[in-house]
Amino acid sequence: MQVGFIGLGQMGSGMAARLLTSGENIKVFNRTPEKMQALADQGAQAASNLQDFADADVVFTMLADDPAVTSLVLEENGLITQLRPGAVHVSCSTISVALSAQLAAAHAKAGQEYLAAPVFGRPDAAAAGKLFLVLAGKPELITRLQTLFDVIGQRSFVVAEAPEKANLVKLSGNFLIASVIESLGEAMALVEKGGVDRHAYLDLLTSSLFNVPLYKNYGALLADRKFTPPGFAAPLGQKDMRLVLAAAENLDVPLPLASLLRDRFIRLAAEGGATRDWSAVGALAAQDAGLLP
Amino acid sequence: MQVGFIGLGQMGSGMAARLLTSGENIKVFNRTPEKMQALADQGAQAASNLQDFADADVVFTMLADDPAVTSLVLEENGLITQLRPGAVHVSCSTISVALSAQLAAAHAKAGQEYLAAPVFGRPDAAAAGKLFLVLAGKPELITRLQTLFDVIGQRSFVVAEAPEKANLVKLSGNFLIASVIESLGEAMALVEKGGVDRHAYLDLLTSSLFNVPLYKNYGALLADRKFTPPGFAAPLGQKDMRLVLAAAENLDVPLPLASLLRDRFIRLAAEGGATRDWSAVGALAAQDAGLLP
Amino acid sequence: MQVGFIGLGQMGSGMAARLLTSGENIKVFNRTPEKMQALADQGAQAASNLQDFADADVVFTMLADDPAVTSLVLEENGLITQLRPGAVHVSCSTISVALSAQLAAAHAKAGQEYLAAPVFGRPDAAAAGKLFLVLAGKPELITRLQTLFDVIGQRSFVVAEAPEKANLVKLSGNFLIASVIESLGEAMALVEKGGVDRHAYLDLLTSSLFNVPLYKNYGALLADRKFTPPGFAAPLGQKDMRLVLAAAENLDVPLPLASLLRDRFIRLAAEGGATRDWSAVGALAAQDAGLLP
Amino acid sequence: MQVGFIGLGQMGSGMAARLLTSGENIKVFNRTPEKMQALADQGAQAASNLQDFADADVVFTMLADDPAVTSLVLEENGLITQLRPGAVHVSCSTISVALSAQLAAAHAKAGQEYLAAPVFGRPDAAAAGKLFLVLAGKPELITRLQTLFDVIGQRSFVVAEAPEKANLVKLSGNFLIASVIESLGEAMALVEKGGVDRHAYLDLLTSSLFNVPLYKNYGALLADRKFTPPGFAAPLGQKDMRLVLAAAENLDVPLPLASLLRDRFIRLAAEGGATRDWSAVGALAAQDAGLLP
Repeated sequence: MQVGFIGLGQMGSGMAARLLTSGENIKVFNRTPEKMQALADQGAQAASNLQDFADADVVFTMLADDPAVTSLVLEENGLITQLRPGAVHVSCSTISVALSAQLAAAHAKAGQEYLAAPVFGRPDAAAAGKLFLVLAGKPELITRLQTLFDVIGQRSFVVAEAPEKANLVKLSGNFLIASVIESLGEAMALVEKGGVDRHAYLDLLTSSLFNVPLYKNYGALLADRKFTPPGFAAPLGQKDMRLVLAAAENLDVPLPLASLLRDRFIRLAAEGGATRDWSAVGALAAQDAGLLP
Repeated sequence: MQVGFIGLGQMGSGMAARLLTSGENIKVFNRTPEKMQALADQGAQAASNLQDFADADVVFTMLADDPAVTSLVLEENGLITQLRPGAVHVSCSTISVALSAQLAAAHAKAGQEYLAAPVFGRPDAAAAGKLFLVLAGKPELITRLQTLFDVIGQRSFVVAEAPEKANLVKLSGNFLIASVIESLGEAMALVEKGGVDRHAYLDLLTSSLFNVPLYKNYGALLADRKFTPPGFAAPLGQKDMRLVLAAAENLDVPLPLASLLRDRFIRLAAEGGATRDWSAVGALAAQDAGLLP
Repeated sequence: MQVGFIGLGQMGSGMAARLLTSGENIKVFNRTPEKMQALADQGAQAASNLQDFADADVVFTMLADDPAVTSLVLEENGLITQLRPGAVHVSCSTISVALSAQLAAAHAKAGQEYLAAPVFGRPDAAAAGKLFLVLAGKPELITRLQTLFDVIGQRSFVVAEAPEKANLVKLSGNFLIASVIESLGEAMALVEKGGVDRHAYLDLLTSSLFNVPLYKNYGALLADRKFTPPGFAAPLGQKDMRLVLAAAENLDVPLPLASLLRDRFIRLAAEGGATRDWSAVGALAAQDAGLLP
Repeated sequence: MQVGFIGLGQMGSGMAARLLTSGENIKVFNRTPEKMQALADQGAQAASNLQDFADADVVFTMLADDPAVTSLVLEENGLITQLRPGAVHVSCSTISVALSAQLAAAHAKAGQEYLAAPVFGRPDAAAAGKLFLVLAGKPELITRLQTLFDVIGQRSFVVAEAPEKANLVKLSGNFLIASVIESLGEAMALVEKGGVDRHAYLDLLTSSLFNVPLYKNYGALLADRKFTPPGFAAPLGQKDMRLVLAAAENLDVPLPLASLLRDRFIRLAAEGGATRDWSAVGALAAQDAGLLP
């Protein structure tokens, strides 16, 4: 198989490196070409431009947000004009439900295939092939590409045939993670103001009911109040709350907790939090309790 | 040691049965005496009234709420008038921070000792000695009674010397659990309205980031929409939200997510939800999305 | 008629002065006796203690909160032990629904009468006899005392026979006022950040749809950001939100906007806002938008 | 002056009729031509298409939402391609801040002028020339057109030179009105559940602190629970909450009360409320209190 991978950020470079272990021919591309070098050193081909994907059987994309995907795929001379009929676009980016549906329609019109395959996991999980993949699309496409998904993720879940449903699930998952951050932030502010050490408190929680890496990792960030450098920057979290609420509004689903989180992210932005990890929203509870300077 | 145990509900009867394995003399009491029989059959003494605890070295109490504890301990001819000087009252009930502080002061005035030892876990964990105990009080008391705590719980955590801080931690924990219920309820409503099966969705979550019994158990209740019979009844959850918010207000700590939960519980009560499990608040999101009849 | 008036704070002293114009014998009392002098100079009798109200036909009370009323009326040697059978207690304080019901029962047991008559209006309105009275109690009592109400207020509204319902209405009114403060605070933060002068904005609002003193007065406080000295101190507003939410919880009525307001007041308290006017909660929106230093 | 008016809905037809009293030549247009007849009967010219506005000095538009304005003005053969250089487009529609800024830029590029002039008031106020106009644009344009504004509105307010700021103010005003609806809805649910008649309660409020048509009118809708036919349909209110929150997010301003309102509107939509007046969101509080069937 001729496999392309576009978008070599923190996540994408790890995923592309994993694909190199699949035994397929891997061709990579990134707008800022320096990032291609490390992968080229490991055996990937470096594409010069999107035309180089004309012979690809499948192209993965892993980009920051809707505008980046729109620009790469749909705008003038975009990927959709370069892929051959029958080629598959596997979109791993965390994008809106609406854009994913739009991509599905556009590729179908161009005689191409489209799968949504957003992922859960941080850059270290990407590099280790330990991501969780959320897949939606035609079953036969998923079967055809399963070996590729297996080198990227520790497990993949097929949620539907309509690709955009994978994006909905992904966004809902980021909402759940943000909820964990908010609830931990409030609980820690409370017990700390009441005189309980917040590290000891976190140890209690994660040694009992909440014995899972997600609570341990975000709990540690909150207990340490260490939000830089960001593992996942606050503006990306804000974008995801915006996207999950937009999807929910389209479906007539009120999400009051997501609304609360949205307001938290906007406030963090107003306070200059753009360079912090998104878990910094969890410190606003401590701030409101008068615990921070 | 002469050990007393008062309050033989779903939780207390399991805890008292575990204490029987400690090798100490165990005397039990319950307002409705029928519940004492099963424990008497296993070797416990059945007390006739509170005077029977005059020789106790330590008395555990496990009651439903503040009024029950106040009535038993502080009102006319209450436990505090029966215990000998130096005896220890170990309060396991989920009560308010304010009442716990009041009990500490009252016992001190009576020359008695007081420990707060609220627990995390459902009745099955109580019966199996698998609870988590949150302890606060004088270190030497905790050391003296550690063997008893060890037959009740799989692990105990000492959080402070001031007893009421254990109650604060316990309440904050119930807030965190309620937050899990709300967030799962909203996320499930969203994906279900978007066309994703909610059981499959739950499996995805609990096979990946949320691989922990708490999410599995509450997630299953929500996915099955099975809220009766209650494991932990909605009015108790409502009480806990009220208590955590009262403690927070006393400490000048705003908790917006707890406020949202409080409103959810009140609404559930208005809809006649008193006999349902507290996880039923998580179904309000589905109701608001038009998913329920 | 022998008329008593207890509680000569900012509101009570104005109301008592108005009663002097009724032609009845007015006897006043205040814990800190200095405040009685001005009224004595205008013709009131100054009581030495509660026993001096033994011959009163009616006694008005205007106190700060539940503990003050409980202490004065219900505790040892309280007013209830001094009033003669048939005497009427008119409670004007903003107190809880529960305490008002308790007072009604206690006075009935003592063979006395009880009316709730909380008021809307600031100290200047009290001094001018321009308050609005919310009355609940037996119709014949209200008729008997109408001439007194007419010198205190510009208008009185009878809402029910059960006295505590007047308190419910009063608390709901303070919730509505706080809602005006919050909504104006958010709207002003928005337009100011968008480049519109907030005084000009307020002028637009209050010259068009919101042409009413309530919006003008609170709007001016917010536009000027002038919150000291307080006309109505933030802790009193916080108390009222607590009382309205407690009443609502007892009635199974969720009030999400009141919950939001409660969190705002708690946050203001955590920031040291106890000496500010309660309208200072409206500035938190500007603070969260990064508009305040 | 040659004056055009496009968009003859409930609001626009009243405004256009008022313009006929100005003594200027008025030419009207509507996609569904039947609505032009009544105005033609009163002396207006009926345009056949947008080309007929080539000689206009000023064209008012009053349309439902962003898509309608975008389609009419900006898309192929839109108004912007028909107006002559120097002609003024006065946009009265309640549209997004972003679209208003886009219109300003597009007209400037085309050598045309652009004013934003959104209005407050219902159809009856439009017909009576009693609207309030919120104006933003170049001062000389406003001066030039003041006589036209004066026949449309009882008063006009100039808020800024940048046109989109008028739209921001207009959206913030609709947020304030929605806040009134929500707060009244909650307060009425509370007192009604407590046994106070809601019409009497409304009379009390609007005879005292809230003596203003806005509270009277919306209060009556809520007390009567009469939400059809809609004066302003719920989906329009939902749109406005979306637009105000989008503008606020762009400015980094969290608006928690607007978020609460947004969730209310989404829930109303899920319950099939699209044909009700937007004040129906105020009945959700009663529903949550168990007051509605």
